[in-house]
Amino acid sequence: MATPSKKDQLFLGSFIHSTKLDELTYLHNAAVFVDAQGKIVHVERDCDEQRAREALVPRLGWGAGEDELVVVRGGGTGEFFFPGFVDTHLHASQYPNVGIFGKSTLLDWLNTYTFPLEASLSDQAKARKVYSRVIRKTLSHGTTCAAYYATVDVPSTNLLADLCLSYGQRALVGRVCMDQLAPSYYRDESPAASLAATRESIAYIESIDPSRSLIRPVLTPRFAPSCSAPLMRGLGDLAAEMPHLPIQTHISENKNEIALVAELFPKASTGAADDSYAGVYDAFGLLTDRTILAHGVHLSESEATLIASRKAKVSHCPCSNSAITSGAARVRWLLEKGVVCGLGTDMSGGYSPSVLEAARLAALVSRHVAMGGDEKAKLSVEEVLYLATRGGAEVVGLEDRVGGFEVGMDWDAQLVGLGVVDPLGEGVVDDQEDGNVDVFGWETWPDLVAKWVYNGDDRNTKKVWVKGRLVHERK
Amino acid sequence: MATPSKKDQLFLGSFIHSTKLDELTYLHNAAVFVDAQGKIVHVERDCDEQRAREALVPRLGWGAGEDELVVVRGGGTGEFFFPGFVDTHLHASQYPNVGIFGKSTLLDWLNTYTFPLEASLSDQAKARKVYSRVIRKTLSHGTTCAAYYATVDVPSTNLLADLCLSYGQRALVGRVCMDQLAPSYYRDESPAASLAATRESIAYIESIDPSRSLIRPVLTPRFAPSCSAPLMRGLGDLAAEMPHLPIQTHISENKNEIALVAELFPKASTGAADDSYAGVYDAFGLLTDRTILAHGVHLSESEATLIASRKAKVSHCPCSNSAITSGAARVRWLLEKGVVCGLGTDMSGGYSPSVLEAARLAALVSRHVAMGGDEKAKLSVEEVLYLATRGGAEVVGLEDRVGGFEVGMDWDAQLVGLGVVDPLGEGVVDDQEDGNVDVFGWETWPDLVAKWVYNGDDRNTKKVWVKGRLVHERK
Repeated sequence: MATPSKKDQLFLGSFIHSTKLDELTYLHNAAVFVDAQGKIVHVERDCDEQRAREALVPRLGWGAGEDELVVVRGGGTGEFFFPGFVDTHLHASQYPNVGIFGKSTLLDWLNTYTFPLEASLSDQAKARKVYSRVIRKTLSHGTTCAAYYATVDVPSTNLLADLCLSYGQRALVGRVCMDQLAPSYYRDESPAASLAATRESIAYIESIDPSRSLIRPVLTPRFAPSCSAPLMRGLGDLAAEMPHLPIQTHISENKNEIALVAELFPKASTGAADDSYAGVYDAFGLLTDRTILAHGVHLSESEATLIASRKAKVSHCPCSNSAITSGAARVRWLLEKGVVCGLGTDMSGGYSPSVLEAARLAALVSRHVAMGGDEKAKLSVEEVLYLATRGGAEVVGLEDRVGGFEVGMDWDAQLVGLGVVDPLGEGVVDDQEDGNVDVFGWETWPDLVAKWVYNGDDRNTKKVWVKGRLVHERK
Repeated sequence: MATPSKKDQLFLGSFIHSTKLDELTYLHNAAVFVDAQGKIVHVERDCDEQRAREALVPRLGWGAGEDELVVVRGGGTGEFFFPGFVDTHLHASQYPNVGIFGKSTLLDWLNTYTFPLEASLSDQAKARKVYSRVIRKTLSHGTTCAAYYATVDVPSTNLLADLCLSYGQRALVGRVCMDQLAPSYYRDESPAASLAATRESIAYIESIDPSRSLIRPVLTPRFAPSCSAPLMRGLGDLAAEMPHLPIQTHISENKNEIALVAELFPKASTGAADDSYAGVYDAFGLLTDRTILAHGVHLSESEATLIASRKAKVSHCPCSNSAITSGAARVRWLLEKGVVCGLGTDMSGGYSPSVLEAARLAALVSRHVAMGGDEKAKLSVEEVLYLATRGGAEVVGLEDRVGGFEVGMDWDAQLVGLGVVDPLGEGVVDDQEDGNVDVFGWETWPDLVAKWVYNGDDRNTKKVWVKGRLVHERK
């Protein structure tokens, strides 16, 4: 069980977080006070360590001794605290396949690369190796919260939840529901068996973290084509029965997939207003304000309107959409339609474990949308970082808990450090890791953040905390 | 002056290189023999160290003592030798600005970000810091050969050549020619002044490496809009006068730029067959088999035909084209037109110093071209690695010297190492660096190469050699 830090904590230095879609707020020479439960209890601007200790620690009723207070200093050149990233869509079970997709597109990619690997994780030792690694890897990239798909298998799905709790990563963990259009070696035997296994996994995950402090189960119909109508109906009923339960699935990723959905779920069979993909989920009670829809690349105007009206959320997965040639999602258009968006790595349709890479690709893909004629489609550095933090938090329903540095939020954060080039240009100054971001010393703060977004990697994520607990530190 | 290794060298392990556009050849348990001048003199398949030492070293007439023969072993799991990358287009002077471009496009990006930085490098201390860092950084990413733009300033351009020679990076170094449409603080004063400065820099660079073993000057009209007709004519004459001299410039990057070229150089003024961008360079004698054209995003059919007929080459810069919203170059179409293509990072229009990142983006951008309807546009892992090595070598006119592991070529190579996940998934096995590529052990060799292309970075480039000399090694 993930334990809080047990001590109060004082963080000192520069803090950067999103305060609006297109705005980062910079707090320099600031102090953030985090209590032993991992909650931010006070934020003070223009506050050095002395003032923090003398004026503020006593006011909070905290002790200032070494065994009572942890002080973390992050004020070096090119150093800043940033909210942890939220990865709103990834398949933990596919992690070993990152980068392996050839020239495939969605439906052949599933059969060729994905189903065999997922099925093999019913081997618990293999599942432990893969899941441990994906958690450790994503933590090292600053992902403090992840919405995971596991597999069809209940024990290994439960193992993923155990491991998230143990490593201290905040997570939604979903057992994958699929009872059709999948190989016979890898699917639920019937709608009833699928629903029973889903209930079993939900009950287990709720039992290991009853207060939902870190881990929660998520209802996970893989995507409409792999769920029969009875299973979809059963899952919709389950969603209604458990109104606290988030739901995650895929939508409108690939044109062949969309045609398949229209063929499998004609409106006459579902009672939907049209044959649209969004309409199918809606007809089965799965399009709710707790629903995370991955992709949404080819949504129609009316689907976006429906999604916005149901307050369902979209996980934008640009690495995946480009890699397996799904399309270029119109994020600006979705945002202007009122649809809340976050970012997903979508491993292993996406090749990278890094939400920072997803942010970078979100900016680049938005430029490809702009090249198609919609100049205002371009997403700025500020905007993609908003999607990676605040947007993601809202997508997974945790916007009151994580995503920024407000009092009352949990301390889910990363300490970012950028390399400062030495005077001769030979390398970086002493005691710094030689990463891929070079600071020359004349950059503005927004320049530094842009450099981080475009060239940063896990080497720049020096420390990571979830709910106040230090869960990753670079050696 | 870069010195060869002075000793004969024996490389043992797995060797992977491109042998056709869509084909990588894998040599496992092989031995490559490199003489003291840095040239590959023998390649032997199925050859362990004992056989190499006993049967082959004596046949080459080499000594086998420690002071005579260096042995480099690269046969660990996930380890292989790969040809060094060729970066066919980058601005050394813009390196400090990588990632800093906001929402700009080419012409405003030049004025806002680029010209002020380039101008500032007439300060020699600043130039030394920037140029040292860009050389060391690109070497660390496996770039063994780079086609550099410096600045208008002669002394700092010459310094860049000195530093390349000193650090041992193979390079084309060009003083930038521009006498119009640039700020008054940063341009050549007249065509005559531009030509004189160009001759001065060429003479200097040829003097420091008379045999062109590593460094050569390159004629560098920035791009047509920044060169007056008299300067273009003078540069064309210089190209004819020095038939060994490569030429580099930009073409058809951005639609506003193309319109500007048509306006500045109407066919009536140049004698070209049409107002096309390629036609302008051709009219001035600058479209030759030694010409490296960066970008070529919006070329017409007839321009591509003209470029192919002149045997000019194209440097594809996908990171840059996406970042500053220039467009998506149709690489497959160019290749099918018979145009030789390589990859360029185009820092700092491009955000990354890594040719591996350029290869990754070339694959992704080709998928965006495919999404536009041309399914066959997709570039495979094999194809982007060909562009990064063989293609690049041909673009810079060094296809007989570098790009593969044939006898007679120079040993310009990198030792790549991928991290092997430990049994518990906690990290990678002992003695390995915890990079961003995770090997689980069941991957095929093509899988490993795909993982490297999609998640690799400089941490996977363990050692780098140019002409047999070890020029970079990870600590």
